[in-house]
Amino acid sequence: MPKRAVLLLSGGLDSTTTAAIARSEGYELYALTVRYGQRHASEVEAARRVAAALGLAAHHVLDLDLASLGGSALTDAHATIPKDRSLDEIGAPGDVPSTYVPARNTVLLALALAWAETLGAEAIFLGVNVLDASGYPDCRAEFVAAFEALARTATRAAVTGASIAIRAPLITLTKAEIIRRGVALGIDFGLTESCYDPPAAQFACGRCDACALRRKGFAEAGVVDPTRYG
Amino acid sequence: MPKRAVLLLSGGLDSTTTAAIARSEGYELYALTVRYGQRHASEVEAARRVAAALGLAAHHVLDLDLASLGGSALTDAHATIPKDRSLDEIGAPGDVPSTYVPARNTVLLALALAWAETLGAEAIFLGVNVLDASGYPDCRAEFVAAFEALARTATRAAVTGASIAIRAPLITLTKAEIIRRGVALGIDFGLTESCYDPPAAQFACGRCDACALRRKGFAEAGVVDPTRYG
Repeated sequence: MPKRAVLLLSGGLDSTTTAAIARSEGYELYALTVRYGQRHASEVEAARRVAAALGLAAHHVLDLDLASLGGSALTDAHATIPKDRSLDEIGAPGDVPSTYVPARNTVLLALALAWAETLGAEAIFLGVNVLDASGYPDCRAEFVAAFEALARTATRAAVTGASIAIRAPLITLTKAEIIRRGVALGIDFGLTESCYDPPAAQFACGRCDACALRRKGFAEAGVVDPTRYG
Repeated sequence: MPKRAVLLLSGGLDSTTTAAIARSEGYELYALTVRYGQRHASEVEAARRVAAALGLAAHHVLDLDLASLGGSALTDAHATIPKDRSLDEIGAPGDVPSTYVPARNTVLLALALAWAETLGAEAIFLGVNVLDASGYPDCRAEFVAAFEALARTATRAAVTGASIAIRAPLITLTKAEIIRRGVALGIDFGLTESCYDPPAAQFACGRCDACALRRKGFAEAGVVDPTRYG
């Protein structure tokens, strides 16, 4: 039986590259996408395109109304998404921007853990990274390590001694390095979407933090950015 | 401003007693109930009754299709719920019964954490207990401690230094002690439901693990069991 892993797939550049890395390591991949009330729900369609293109074993889309718990511009249709921030502002230490969704990665990993336990998966892959990121607390190595420790106590593994690894292979890479890695693994980044506030399906605003980091990444990597901004 | 806490409220005996304890400590309580695809969804109605009776600040019911991730008799309408097991069988070390829902308490705590962060709550209360319980791995003190450690890294607390306590005041109590505590705090246990396989609304089967533990608890506590078995 091939070794299995659950992959958190948002349809963005990072989770798509993570998928390609996990696949290159020989994992049979079960992708989980959560429609959690994000304004940019078109990323779910991007996730479907990516899952189909990469030929993953399964792609499950789960609905969960995190918007009802509040606390984020990303799940509030009336909030303003920050635009035109400089790269220095985006990466400022101690700044947690309004697009942070409270405990989102904890919720996503918890759901991935539930599925991983059912599937008998060895690992959960997620595409968080610290450099060229938005300063979200739940994208750091300490968080990933703490969740892995939790997972050892939270499932049948606590009884059987088996464990589920939490893998974040991009965590110390720059956006440019992630893009180069993805290109080397054959990813068509035109399938992916990063924008927090897309003006239309398969278009990106070009001005939110996610677009700013994506543009910088392609420029630094010397790779043509396939995103349609407008 | 009163100190706030999020409470995971299933509508059962344990979470209801936990609510009364948290209230007695002066917390303003925000109760979260998750309709996760459990067969015994009538427990959601029990949670509504309890929230109303205790006068909680808010009660939020969230839908999440954990059944679609599989792995449990409790979310599978075609599975058989174990019945007529002896108390020795129910508590046997190393036994994780088929009613265990993979990573359920991790998912529930993750959702509670999201809400707690938004509310500025100091604590999350949950009614897990180890004695007179079903042997679920995510009801142990190690799990609760690991989640509290995770919470410190998972939210804005990682930046601000604030933290959210994970409180499980029943964890070392027997079912009889929990019932006596609840009675002392004025709880009407007739509002609560524990049964995994209720034959009708507000009736209990009397034969599943949850009913067996509940019956034993009332008998040992010397308290009349208000449950309608049949």
